[in-house]
Amino acid sequence: MIYEEKTMKSERIYEGKILSVRIDTVELPDKKYSKREIVEHPGAVAIVPITDDGQLVLVKQFRKATESVLLEIPAGKLELNENPYDCAKRELKEETGLDAEKVEQMLEYFSSPGFTNEKVRIFIASGVISGEANPEDDEYIDIVKVNIDEALKMIDNGIIKDGKTIIGILTAYSKIKNIEK
Amino acid sequence: MIYEEKTMKSERIYEGKILSVRIDTVELPDKKYSKREIVEHPGAVAIVPITDDGQLVLVKQFRKATESVLLEIPAGKLELNENPYDCAKRELKEETGLDAEKVEQMLEYFSSPGFTNEKVRIFIASGVISGEANPEDDEYIDIVKVNIDEALKMIDNGIIKDGKTIIGILTAYSKIKNIEK
Repeated sequence: MIYEEKTMKSERIYEGKILSVRIDTVELPDKKYSKREIVEHPGAVAIVPITDDGQLVLVKQFRKATESVLLEIPAGKLELNENPYDCAKRELKEETGLDAEKVEQMLEYFSSPGFTNEKVRIFIASGVISGEANPEDDEYIDIVKVNIDEALKMIDNGIIKDGKTIIGILTAYSKIKNIEK
Repeated sequence: MIYEEKTMKSERIYEGKILSVRIDTVELPDKKYSKREIVEHPGAVAIVPITDDGQLVLVKQFRKATESVLLEIPAGKLELNENPYDCAKRELKEETGLDAEKVEQMLEYFSSPGFTNEKVRIFIASGVISGEANPEDDEYIDIVKVNIDEALKMIDNGIIKDGKTIIGILTAYSKIKNIEK
């Protein structure tokens, strides 16, 4: 049974720099009402950069929301009207200093559809060429290179704990394995 | 260089039923200040239920945040002081009617650490036994069974678009392949 929740009322709670919050009152199939708390997000891109010798380039940074240092693939939010492909190349360059010969979208997904519309597009970047990183004023980022088998182990033993990074590495791995077949 | 962002001020914007929002003013390594918009979430569990004949049990439901019907593994939010393992068994039963002989945590991850502390724990449930589903009053859920190879294809061609479902299926697949080796 496919149905949609009809919006009966929508109340804007917060309008922020990065995210906004609204509460929708919705009508359910039984005609009863319920409330949905929704975080609006502009969407993000993430990039799996692979060097010619098969190394993955990861970034390490403190994340206030989780109060911890996380190891992630390079990523960033979409700017207003920005093309996701351009955004991927821009964020890769800003965070790691890398240019890439080839940048291709692998997949897109919703990070947590129970409460947010954030859509993440994951790209794979190959033929990456070193350059100078240029992070934003409030970004402090370390670069870490690992090979793909190490990266898989780091997912398995919980060293890598970021959703987009797990999806990006697992998808890149299956892509690489398919090409090798 | 490992550092932490020291909280200079924390302002609570919204205190909701499921989520809360706060703005932290943080001090960066260069002593400048920046703001972080943070969505506080109680955390969630998700379950990959596998039947004895190798079928995956998925749920299909409308998600207001994304305005679309999504195919997902069963999941739910942690209740106050609830043990994640108990929560996994409870949500599996509520959403699908299934009891499981064996429930084991596979991994945990942050769904989107750039703005939320939501941690998702993913379990694998085997030896599942049919029973009666008992969803919450405002949940309308369909059950869909697919085999794991179909599920992988559905990730590849974008039919499955939910982050936890992608991570759960890819992790379960690599676990099953390892056992078969």
